[in-house]
Order: sequence, then structure tokens, then C-alpha cells
Amino acid sequence: MTAAIDPAQMLRAGQAILATQPFSVLLGAELHSFTPGHCELHVPITDKIRQQHGFVHGGVVSYAADNALTYAGGSLLGGAAVTSEFKINYVRPAIGERLIARAHAVHTGSSQAVCRCDVFVLTQGVEKLCAVAQGTIARLPAAKTS
Amino acid sequence: MTAAIDPAQMLRAGQAILATQPFSVLLGAELHSFTPGHCELHVPITDKIRQQHGFVHGGVVSYAADNALTYAGGSLLGGAAVTSEFKINYVRPAIGERLIARAHAVHTGSSQAVCRCDVFVLTQGVEKLCAVAQGTIARLPAAKTS
Amino acid sequence: MTAAIDPAQMLRAGQAILATQPFSVLLGAELHSFTPGHCELHVPITDKIRQQHGFVHGGVVSYAADNALTYAGGSLLGGAAVTSEFKINYVRPAIGERLIARAHAVHTGSSQAVCRCDVFVLTQGVEKLCAVAQGTIARLPAAKTS
Amino acid sequence: MTAAIDPAQMLRAGQAILATQPFSVLLGAELHSFTPGHCELHVPITDKIRQQHGFVHGGVVSYAADNALTYAGGSLLGGAAVTSEFKINYVRPAIGERLIARAHAVHTGSSQAVCRCDVFVLTQGVEKLCAVAQGTIARLPAAKTS
Repeated sequence: MTAAIDPAQMLRAGQAILATQPFSVLLGAELHSFTPGHCELHVPITDKIRQQHGFVHGGVVSYAADNALTYAGGSLLGGAAVTSEFKINYVRPAIGERLIARAHAVHTGSSQAVCRCDVFVLTQGVEKLCAVAQGTIARLPAAKTS
Repeated sequence: MTAAIDPAQMLRAGQAILATQPFSVLLGAELHSFTPGHCELHVPITDKIRQQHGFVHGGVVSYAADNALTYAGGSLLGGAAVTSEFKINYVRPAIGERLIARAHAVHTGSSQAVCRCDVFVLTQGVEKLCAVAQGTIARLPAAKTS
Repeated sequence: MTAAIDPAQMLRAGQAILATQPFSVLLGAELHSFTPGHCELHVPITDKIRQQHGFVHGGVVSYAADNALTYAGGSLLGGAAVTSEFKINYVRPAIGERLIARAHAVHTGSSQAVCRCDVFVLTQGVEKLCAVAQGTIARLPAAKTS
Repeated sequence: MTAAIDPAQMLRAGQAILATQPFSVLLGAELHSFTPGHCELHVPITDKIRQQHGFVHGGVVSYAADNALTYAGGSLLGGAAVTSEFKINYVRPAIGERLIARAHAVHTGSSQAVCRCDVFVLTQGVEKLCAVAQGTIARLPAAKTS
């Protein structure tokens, strides 16, 4: 039904979108993988994204989950997509060098996709799970994106 | 059981904590109200917190909800507190001058509080609801905060 | 845009729908109030809906929340509606005579409504909060209801 | 740290608990698998658990998710456990012969476990995903179980 998607081109297209999100640029977010229904988004950990105990602020972890969910779901919906809702459980303080959010779609309908995301923190080459999320991604009506 | 809390002092104490969160400082977040079980947190809308369609990035809206939930719940738990989990529904694109997150506790137990939050966007003096959230705030064991 | 709704007629219509839900009949659920955007659903507490500790089973509490959310949201969407997703926090064991779930819509769009619900347990005339929920109600395409 | 667990004995113990839940008995729920951190719970689909469109009522699907989450998390916490909170996305109407809820723990702390659950509907030998859930299971203080 669709022409074959060139993986490298899809990743570059995803990275180009990320570069147009000022907030993602502010956080230094990087799209490392982007295939239909899947996404891997990284956020390098720097001092400016911490909270008062030195952990990455939960808001950054939820940003990473939210954005990864949107990419994973949006890749299957066609056109612009937004997160309608999501839920996140923080399971471990995020201390380390890099957040890695991996999301995938578990079900795709005509206008919505339900996705899950695992957020890991990378420390000295070891990944540890720090949050899990689940949410709904909705295709944005064309009129709402402009 | 507790001495009377001076409202002005409580607000200043909350603002002092916010000032120690580098990520909250990065976003320019402001604590406007902080009483037992309640919190009002603002985030001025600037270009750097937008996504590619010009709306405030969902990650910033979820940050505001998350942090407001933590203040509302933490004020009733004593000591440091963190958000264990929360859920957010985005109901309207956030376009305007300022995000206003108002959270309150709906139930407080010995070590956890369940809280709700409404996030509004302020435009030309009018507030519009842009997201609603619900989550669990947990008292952090002393050992985990240092 | 709509003709005035007769409140008594709306309640009877809602009760008639409830009577066509075998599971609601099995639980003895009762619709006590049903107005645009609002609903109050009761479940009398009997032995058959308990778990092993004598509390009402969480599954019954979540049923009450889910169904009340659907009524509250569905009343504003027109036509048949279903719960797309919801989240529930249990805050107190449900011990008493009756569950009372009160739901209301917080935002209504063209095809979805976001709603909240409080579930109380009634004991000797006193209501105590036992759960809070939040979720999305979607209008069901006509083809899916038959 | 723990003695080896006999799998058959663990399953029988789980089934014995299920048999003491009147609501689970009412629904005819069956525990098919129960190992540390994992659970598979079935609910045979009969007319009494449907809603007005002939689908299994969402409340039954959420019961299956909730109970499976509790088993999966509780198996790792020791002692009695309850679901503190969970979130569920319904992705397909449940029409078929049997609900199958499979849950597993994704993280276990000292007093809580975060778990995920997939609920399938079985029709003529084929399983289809109908809901996904995520939630927190908490060990119940001994005093609250009696």
C-alpha cells in the first residue's frame, strides 16, 4: 500500500522535525532510531535538566517519554500527530549520562495509536530502567497544525 | 500536632526549593501560591518551550503538571517528596502568554498523596484549560535525597 | 442548537441503557442522576462483589468509574460512546453499603470528552472517597455499535 | 535468599486465593499461570458480562487487567498486595470466547511493583489484543488485610 520507506531517509526526516521543536533543541534531544512504529530518543544529561536532589527532573523524563511516544505512534498515522494523553511511572531516580527513551506502538487505528515507552538512564555503559509510560497518539487534523 | 504555618513563609520556602531546581530555573517557572495541599505554578511562555507547530511543547505542560502535583502532595507529607506516577490528558493546544498549573491533594495517607492538577493557558487575561492530570506523590526516604 | 432536554426523560433514557448492559444488571448498578456532562451511578455492596479481604473488589470500583465516565462524556457527544482509556487511583478500601460514582466532563471536543470521576463508599450515611479516576470517552462510529 | 518455589504449588496457592474472591468466582475467572513476576488470568465470556452492544463490558476487561497486575506484582512483594493505581487503554471491542490477561512486573521496589498487562480476546483459536494496562501494586500492611 505504501512505497518502501528508506530507513536512513525516515530517520533524517524525523531528526529534521526534532530540529524544528525549540524545546527539544533546548534539551539537546537526539533522535537515534525511527522506523514505522518505533522510536529511540536520547537526552544527554546536563546540569540544567536536574532537580534539587541532583536527579534528572521528572519533567524531562516525561518529556522524553511523551516525545518518543509521539514519534512511534505518529510514524504509523500519517501526517502530523500529537500525544492526546499518557501515563508515566517513575521507577528509579535518573542519575547518569544520558536518558534513552524507546517507544513502540502496540495498536494502531485509523486516527489513533496506543504506544508504550521505556525510559532508561545510561551510566558507564549500563542502562537502567527509570520510567515506563503508556499513551495515546492522535493524528492532528491538518487545520490544527498551521 | 504542627505549629501554625505562616503562609508567606511557606510560599517563600517553596520558592526557595524551586530556585534549587535547575530545570525549573531554565523554564522560568514561578511558584505563585503554596498552601497545605495546594499549589499554583506558572511557566511564562517563550519561544524556547514550543514545539514545531508553535504550541507549548507537551513536555513543558507535563513538567508543569508534574511539579505542581509534587508541591501539592509534598506539602502534606512532610520532608522531601517526588511524583511516583501521573497521568495527563491534553485537551487544547497551549497557545498564549503563560501556563498556570493548579494542583490539590484529594487524599493523603501516611507516605503518599493522590493529587489532581488543572493546567490552564492564559491569553489576554483569559484562562483556558489545556490539560488535566492525576497522580501519586510519595515521601522520599531521607537516604534517597542526599 | 438542541431542543431543551427534559431531565426526567434523560434519566429514564440513561436507566434504560443501563438495563441493556447485562454486566451492570449483574452488579445491580443504578443510575441516580444523569444530566449533560454529569452522572451519578450507584452499586449496592453485596457479598458477591468482594475480594478476599472483604473489601469491594477493585474491579467493581473500576467498573463503576468506567461506566460513570462513559455516561458523563457520552451525554455530550451524541450517539453511542465508549471509554477509550482511563486511569484510577484507589485511595481507601471500599467497605460499606453502597458505591457512589460521580463523574463529570472537564472538556468536550468534536468526537471525544475528557472526564473525571470520584468514587465514594457510603457507610451509615457517611460518604468516604475511595477512588478517583480520569479518562477519555469517544463517540462510537455508528457501524461499530450494531 | 528464598527457597526454591515449586511452580505447581505456587499456581495452586494463587488459585486458592482467587477462589476466596467472591467477585472473581462470580465472573468465573481462572488462574492459568502464576510464576514470580508473571500471571495469566482468564475470564470465559458469557452473556452476563457483556454491555449493550454485545461486547464484554469494559469493567470486566479492567477487572481482568487489575487482578492480573495484582498477581504479577504481589508475587514479588511477599504477603498480601493490592493495586494502588492503574491505567488502561481499550484498543478493540472484546468479542469472542475468552479474555486472557497476561501481566508482568517491570520493576520491583521494597514495597511496590510497577507492572504491565496485555489483555487479549480469544476467538476460534486466535488471540487479539483488546487492552493494555500499566499500574502500581503495593504490599498491604498486615493490619489492613484482616
